[in-house]
Amino acid sequence: MRKLFVIGIGAGDPDQLTLQAIKAMNQVDVFFVIGKGAEKQELVDLRGQMLAEHVTGDYRVVEVPDPPRDRTPDDYRAVVDDWHDRRAAALADQFAAVDGVGGILVWGDPALYDSTLRIVERVLAGGGIAFDYEVIPGITSVQALAARHRIVLNKVGEPVQITTGRRLRESPMGDAVVMLDAECSFTAVADDDAQIYWGAYLGMPDEVLISGRLRDVADEIARVRAELRERKGWIMDTYLLRH
Amino acid sequence: MRKLFVIGIGAGDPDQLTLQAIKAMNQVDVFFVIGKGAEKQELVDLRGQMLAEHVTGDYRVVEVPDPPRDRTPDDYRAVVDDWHDRRAAALADQFAAVDGVGGILVWGDPALYDSTLRIVERVLAGGGIAFDYEVIPGITSVQALAARHRIVLNKVGEPVQITTGRRLRESPMGDAVVMLDAECSFTAVADDDAQIYWGAYLGMPDEVLISGRLRDVADEIARVRAELRERKGWIMDTYLLRH
Repeated sequence: MRKLFVIGIGAGDPDQLTLQAIKAMNQVDVFFVIGKGAEKQELVDLRGQMLAEHVTGDYRVVEVPDPPRDRTPDDYRAVVDDWHDRRAAALADQFAAVDGVGGILVWGDPALYDSTLRIVERVLAGGGIAFDYEVIPGITSVQALAARHRIVLNKVGEPVQITTGRRLRESPMGDAVVMLDAECSFTAVADDDAQIYWGAYLGMPDEVLISGRLRDVADEIARVRAELRERKGWIMDTYLLRH
Repeated sequence: MRKLFVIGIGAGDPDQLTLQAIKAMNQVDVFFVIGKGAEKQELVDLRGQMLAEHVTGDYRVVEVPDPPRDRTPDDYRAVVDDWHDRRAAALADQFAAVDGVGGILVWGDPALYDSTLRIVERVLAGGGIAFDYEVIPGITSVQALAARHRIVLNKVGEPVQITTGRRLRESPMGDAVVMLDAECSFTAVADDDAQIYWGAYLGMPDEVLISGRLRDVADEIARVRAELRERKGWIMDTYLLRH
């Protein structure tokens, strides 16, 4: 493999693809799909449709199954670290078999809460294989959330914080965009005068938006989130808390 | 004006345009250019090229000059507030004259350190005119920076902070992406073992990237930044500090 593209493809709306992403996709001979088994069929289909619609030449899709992972570890970082090592070993074998250009499509942006770049760096650090690689940014669910609610993430001159549900539960904080929150951590926020802007399946046909004062809508969001998750079998959501 | 699109057009590389942005641009009859006088000719030309390349029908471009603004105010927020009011009044007059769909193109993403949405909300709050509006997200310079340096913005499970040079000078902080820093505030950071990933004119032909330990490259970045600014007459740059 002489080159690898790691390509951000947006948060779920195929029209969030950039021209740069489409140009890169058209240079790829082999697309690697990491851990497809864990992914929802709807997302797998959506990605397949993007390729079918925008790639004009021939390409192959190779699945690289994920090694198993402890989802409730005592030592979060050590477990993630070991898991990334095993993913890297599996990918290195696949990369070595490619003659041409490889590609990995990433939901959102490879720079935000995604492990692909860390794994690629591990493959290279392993020393068994060498290749150039290039990263293409993509629209994130944070940006889709802000656009759909028509809000600016920062107050005038103030910072933007993007964090996880885990962090929000651990310590109080100012305004924050929260990702990866499976536990409705907003219900534990003390300031119930805060505003919340919540969105699920952003950019997709099933998109749902709720916003309002935390005290007024927290229960509604928790209820709707549980219903959606039950109905579809999975959920992707994010929100902005503003004090 | 029956509808307004506020469209993010990326950080400076025309290929960062999304399909969604191009589709929205093609619905627009009149593009409003706010404060063109203050903008660099290179950016004005670049935006014009994007329209010429991607919009197939007829459109007009209307300039809405910016009212003057105190750039070194004692009370930053009050001055910005008053300035936004005057911008809103100027825009409302122009909106009222449009029969059809309006559009405003925003560098980066309208959700991040951009005043367009605040001004549009003020126009609507003024009550003199009513219209629907829709926001299209765009790739930001933060994302372009991360992609070009091939870095992930967050450490595993940790937050991302995006802030201003002003804030960085006021108080020490953890990892941060710094925007709007005309004063090389990284030179005042105490931890000179920190890593810095810096980029100027990201995605443009004149793009420059520097990264390394802060103690090793801070002087180089300050020197290169001053040279670039002198040569081109303006600079747009951003950086990630990682402790």
